[in-house]
Amino acid sequence: MPDPRFFHRSGPFPLSYIARHIGAEPLDDASGSMMIDDIGPLETAGLGEITVFCDARYVDQFLATHASATVTNHDLARHRAHRSGLLFVAHPRLAYAQIGHLFYPPSPLVSGVSARASIDSTAVIGAGCRIDAGAVISTGVKIGARCHIGVHAFVGPGVVIGDDCVIGANTAISHALLGDRVQIESGGTIGSQGFGFVPGPKGLLRMLQLGRVLIEDDVEIGANCAIDRGATGDTVIGAGTVIDNLVQIGHNARIGQKCVLCGQVGIAGSTEIGDGVMIGGQTAISDHLTIGSGARIAGKSGVMRNVKPGEAVGGYPAVPIRQWHRQSSALLRLLQRKPNDG
Amino acid sequence: MPDPRFFHRSGPFPLSYIARHIGAEPLDDASGSMMIDDIGPLETAGLGEITVFCDARYVDQFLATHASATVTNHDLARHRAHRSGLLFVAHPRLAYAQIGHLFYPPSPLVSGVSARASIDSTAVIGAGCRIDAGAVISTGVKIGARCHIGVHAFVGPGVVIGDDCVIGANTAISHALLGDRVQIESGGTIGSQGFGFVPGPKGLLRMLQLGRVLIEDDVEIGANCAIDRGATGDTVIGAGTVIDNLVQIGHNARIGQKCVLCGQVGIAGSTEIGDGVMIGGQTAISDHLTIGSGARIAGKSGVMRNVKPGEAVGGYPAVPIRQWHRQSSALLRLLQRKPNDG
Amino acid sequence: MPDPRFFHRSGPFPLSYIARHIGAEPLDDASGSMMIDDIGPLETAGLGEITVFCDARYVDQFLATHASATVTNHDLARHRAHRSGLLFVAHPRLAYAQIGHLFYPPSPLVSGVSARASIDSTAVIGAGCRIDAGAVISTGVKIGARCHIGVHAFVGPGVVIGDDCVIGANTAISHALLGDRVQIESGGTIGSQGFGFVPGPKGLLRMLQLGRVLIEDDVEIGANCAIDRGATGDTVIGAGTVIDNLVQIGHNARIGQKCVLCGQVGIAGSTEIGDGVMIGGQTAISDHLTIGSGARIAGKSGVMRNVKPGEAVGGYPAVPIRQWHRQSSALLRLLQRKPNDG
Repeated sequence: MPDPRFFHRSGPFPLSYIARHIGAEPLDDASGSMMIDDIGPLETAGLGEITVFCDARYVDQFLATHASATVTNHDLARHRAHRSGLLFVAHPRLAYAQIGHLFYPPSPLVSGVSARASIDSTAVIGAGCRIDAGAVISTGVKIGARCHIGVHAFVGPGVVIGDDCVIGANTAISHALLGDRVQIESGGTIGSQGFGFVPGPKGLLRMLQLGRVLIEDDVEIGANCAIDRGATGDTVIGAGTVIDNLVQIGHNARIGQKCVLCGQVGIAGSTEIGDGVMIGGQTAISDHLTIGSGARIAGKSGVMRNVKPGEAVGGYPAVPIRQWHRQSSALLRLLQRKPNDG
Repeated sequence: MPDPRFFHRSGPFPLSYIARHIGAEPLDDASGSMMIDDIGPLETAGLGEITVFCDARYVDQFLATHASATVTNHDLARHRAHRSGLLFVAHPRLAYAQIGHLFYPPSPLVSGVSARASIDSTAVIGAGCRIDAGAVISTGVKIGARCHIGVHAFVGPGVVIGDDCVIGANTAISHALLGDRVQIESGGTIGSQGFGFVPGPKGLLRMLQLGRVLIEDDVEIGANCAIDRGATGDTVIGAGTVIDNLVQIGHNARIGQKCVLCGQVGIAGSTEIGDGVMIGGQTAISDHLTIGSGARIAGKSGVMRNVKPGEAVGGYPAVPIRQWHRQSSALLRLLQRKPNDG
Repeated sequence: MPDPRFFHRSGPFPLSYIARHIGAEPLDDASGSMMIDDIGPLETAGLGEITVFCDARYVDQFLATHASATVTNHDLARHRAHRSGLLFVAHPRLAYAQIGHLFYPPSPLVSGVSARASIDSTAVIGAGCRIDAGAVISTGVKIGARCHIGVHAFVGPGVVIGDDCVIGANTAISHALLGDRVQIESGGTIGSQGFGFVPGPKGLLRMLQLGRVLIEDDVEIGANCAIDRGATGDTVIGAGTVIDNLVQIGHNARIGQKCVLCGQVGIAGSTEIGDGVMIGGQTAISDHLTIGSGARIAGKSGVMRNVKPGEAVGGYPAVPIRQWHRQSSALLRLLQRKPNDG
């Protein structure tokens, strides 16, 4: 059970209510009226709790569970399809996530401005916002309704933030326009100068970075990320894209919609990434490349050429993923030959 | 055109003034008196704007541009050398950057100390500084003239900062001496304890980290970097070196002058790097190595041996760059042989 | 000599006192009464200073040193065993670190709460704590005795911190329980949401992250790290483990005791790491793996399979370390063959 110091539970809910919430098939009346108190993992969920069975590898845990209800699908549950409390849906994992949000909804935002926040008189703050201690809102900023601006967040001059955004503690945002429902974890820097220099008589001269960062609706950005603004155009993070911690995004990079960037990924300047691209942790993508929509890039890859839509690549330098696996095997074979063969 | 919410344009300027500013060859009187309003990229610049043509691959865009003036050189422009509004210089990219700074000069620093800053009575602050809300300036700190200390920056006891420095929001600086014109983006940590431990009876005992971080003149450091102080001597960043975001520099590392460290680079402790070294993104360099002046290290390399002055290396482990390319090709050939060959 | 602006020296101490402190063999009376003022590195230590000789490669420096005393062992010092001022111990490096802490003890914590800190009325703060300007302590927080909460640190609702902890500037901590003597450098984020999403009808839906971060006693965490809280269980950092800068630790990762994680390491979600594991800088470890106790992982490795207790691995993908070295050699041999062989 989640620690009540940190998480506040709703409910209980009748199972029939939960079933309707996730679009599950109708239950018999007896099951439907059962009260459910909490969610829990398959191996530990007990009486009054609902769990999920979404991976055939855990069939033994499913057969042994004491949970009062289980979200699953017909195929997975075929060995014990008549057990009580089963909720059948097409996508059990999604349904379970939805049930999670039902039991643990986000805490209602208590609106108000801390006496220790600094808000410039020219800034426009929407209704229902919460501005925490130490937050600094600069000249000309526009913030939509129901936003939560965290402790010590710095929102630089002219920045625009949409509705229902969450800006984490100790985050600095400048030269940026954010859509609705954007969430940024703590410790990030958004809108810093891009990294472009030209050798001059007195040393390296920084090329002007006159663009912005555009963060579209429903983007989520992890902790301690750094996203540079564009040099001439904009750096763009497409709607619904999610970004993990400690990710670096260079100036003028354009990332499509619903992409997934895992921890410590680095995207160099001016690279364009399509929609729905998955990028594994610690992968680096060089500058001025094009990564097609739907591409999948294995963790820790070094991508130094364009990737086609839907292509799966891996390795350093990154090659088609099957070729990379064959390379690794070939290296092993090489070692098994006698030295005088090599 | 840059977003006026974020960038403030100077000008317009007569083209003759711009030409003198960048040391271009004299123009005829008609061209020289033309007024220029703004800069713009080659593909979109229009009437009243100046652009740059510095790469022969974009010759078609050059021939089609509607820009009123173009910075280029004689060789690049030979196909249309008599077009009006051409400014010929030896280094078009540098000249264009200089023109950018002419049209978009840094905003004049409005000096003053925020009522929400905390400044110890023993700190010495130079003339014309701006200290933002939440900044904390500790005992014995010395800050030169015309510095901008950002929101929530923490300057620890005894730190010395030269003239004309910019310290970004949410940055923590301790045990450090900074030269003039140093710029640090937001979210960084400078002067943290180095990572050295010795096994002891009760676990790992941290070895004392009694050195400093010395940052010389004209260094620029990106967002969210971590630079540890030295253990016995100092960690040194040489004059004019530029560092991108999320870079890690270990204790006692010594980096020369005018080096370029791209995003997410990691330099382990006690490694010495010469002058003018270029290090690609996500590269790691092991501890106690020597990297000669002028070396170039490809992105995502893992450097585990010394690198000679001027040498170009790449790969993991890093080898001479041509050898790395040949290795990658050799692996491909290996896969093209029949399985029973291998 | 360390810069007195940053480091405050104790002493002097008689050499006999130092010898007792490190458990060295008894000295003759004349040596024992000698006063020692400071520590210093072997190559520069002079009169009145104590140094260490713990690596046979530096025997020439040992023979030439002007230091008044040297910590070493019998084997290393055999060429000049009768020199005065030698302190013989089993572990010279450890003893020298202990002497360092004798001469440069941590500054005594000056307790008190800054008028610019924000402390919720429900928070419980132990005796002797120091809470710096801008620190924000939220509802229900419990902080033990003698802690130092740095400038602008944010301690979120319900967080528990043990005794004698140090929380660096600009650090954000939420959903976390910390043991005693935990040290966290500046700029970190502890307790952020884990990175887990499930595709839904409107895009990616974040799976609830209902766990915590448990940081056990004596853990030290470097600057700008990001440690996510668990999804269903907890993310755990075992007692005595030390973590360098810019490290990423995913949700539900469990790290054992006395591990060493170097800079920019990334540990993906749900991976379990045993005790005493050493992980080199910029290494990535995939999710849901098991790394046995005592394993050693070379810098910049990409670990994609389980690692056995005590195993040493390296490379990308990581393989046993000797195999990795042989692979690198085999690649070299491949290049030395004539092209028509390959």
